[in-house]
Amino acid sequence: MKRKDLISQIKRKKSFLCIGLDTDINKIPKFLLDLEDPIFEFNKKIIDATNSYCVAYKPNIAFYESEGLNGWKALEKTIKYINSNFPEIFTIADAKRGDIGNTSSMYAKAYFDTLNFDSITINPYMGKDSVEPFLDYKNKHTILLALTSNLGAFDFQTKNVDKTSHQFYYEVIKTSTNWKNSSQLMYVVGATKASYLREIRNIIPNNFLLIPGIGAQGGDLKDVCKNGMNNDVGLLVNSSRSIIFASTGSDFDLISAKKAQEIQSQMENILSSRGLV
Amino acid sequence: MKRKDLISQIKRKKSFLCIGLDTDINKIPKFLLDLEDPIFEFNKKIIDATNSYCVAYKPNIAFYESEGLNGWKALEKTIKYINSNFPEIFTIADAKRGDIGNTSSMYAKAYFDTLNFDSITINPYMGKDSVEPFLDYKNKHTILLALTSNLGAFDFQTKNVDKTSHQFYYEVIKTSTNWKNSSQLMYVVGATKASYLREIRNIIPNNFLLIPGIGAQGGDLKDVCKNGMNNDVGLLVNSSRSIIFASTGSDFDLISAKKAQEIQSQMENILSSRGLV
Repeated sequence: MKRKDLISQIKRKKSFLCIGLDTDINKIPKFLLDLEDPIFEFNKKIIDATNSYCVAYKPNIAFYESEGLNGWKALEKTIKYINSNFPEIFTIADAKRGDIGNTSSMYAKAYFDTLNFDSITINPYMGKDSVEPFLDYKNKHTILLALTSNLGAFDFQTKNVDKTSHQFYYEVIKTSTNWKNSSQLMYVVGATKASYLREIRNIIPNNFLLIPGIGAQGGDLKDVCKNGMNNDVGLLVNSSRSIIFASTGSDFDLISAKKAQEIQSQMENILSSRGLV
Repeated sequence: MKRKDLISQIKRKKSFLCIGLDTDINKIPKFLLDLEDPIFEFNKKIIDATNSYCVAYKPNIAFYESEGLNGWKALEKTIKYINSNFPEIFTIADAKRGDIGNTSSMYAKAYFDTLNFDSITINPYMGKDSVEPFLDYKNKHTILLALTSNLGAFDFQTKNVDKTSHQFYYEVIKTSTNWKNSSQLMYVVGATKASYLREIRNIIPNNFLLIPGIGAQGGDLKDVCKNGMNNDVGLLVNSSRSIIFASTGSDFDLISAKKAQEIQSQMENILSSRGLV
């Protein structure tokens, strides 16, 4: 998907919500467990109910891998279902991959060719040659971990580099802007770290940011938008558990849709107040 | 597997060779492509031919994911085959995973429970809470990326931290020694960075190191052993492409075995000269 098509979708739906499909088989409604493929059936219901309120879905690959072959089948069916029925939706493989060049090429093949996701999250620790195989794909997007939403982000990402006052996550972002096709980079910045966003926008005013941590993890939407939004909106704000596991009743999909609509409505207010829609 | 059983195996086989199963369907002998599961059949032949010369196999997960469902099936069959037929072999999922706690728990379930690997490679960028779910498993081993074998290692891993003369990879190792069950940690240090090993051994004299980069990537075995070996051997030296793709002929497995035996023989000499066998 082209960047401009993502922006069009955001303006049309008045939403920059990404819904995380962290489909934990132990948390989905029990009555689905009798079906042949409960994980896919859950995802399908959630997607059917919420797609008009969000612009992106982000399957979290760990939840599929943990179920082995059945999980992988459910992942394949889920991405095919989205691509076939809602081609305007931006898809994110939340995989946090990254390895030496010949191996990263294989991950790129897995997620961009075989599964046909629009984007993938990538860990920057192994540097340029571990990321560039993903950047080789045209109209695909590489979402680099910068400052993550968890407590462990403070273990290494916020250490100062050399004798500068720059922190490590800042060095990652700054360095990556020199890589080829760096306009295809997006960055993960946790909503729980909203105060860092202003500084980040100084280095990368234009790139999209994927913001996890709204909802279950406690981040605040207004703070994120105040510090991180740009003239193209430039944000994809993710919520997973607080939407998809809002209910385990027979109408779980409708409750999820209601939660998604509430966030979309807050997003619409913010976009309106900034004259972006 | 317990650490002491790994050490016993090393001493019995006079080898600390790990063979990387980076099974690229485009590089395996063409006559295998007619079989129902060429990736598994290739692995089986390689394992049958080489298991007496090595102590560990390391499937590189990217090569399986890139083939989708068929790749995942081949991975499942490969690990089952090793565990059933060669239970003394140490198995490494070269996955380079790592995510927020609830997601890392799912990856741990995938590789330690569902697939039953002995160990997994983990990226430290997201810090303590992204690694600890793996350390919760008894008799399973978490192999943390420290200093990788690729050129991109110099992008971030070797930056100095704060005003110290410590580099980032050093900070990762030092910090991780304070995590719970840190005796179950092993570390990846590229053979192409052998000169760093002496300094690394000062912080972690006892932990095993997984050393990629011998062979196709150009690292030197003697340098690695001189600087990295300890009294328990403490090294697993990996070779992938230069062993498994040594030939594409009908006797490819025997040629691979010959390559593996050559390395085992060099290892035996080193172990003997140090009085370790």
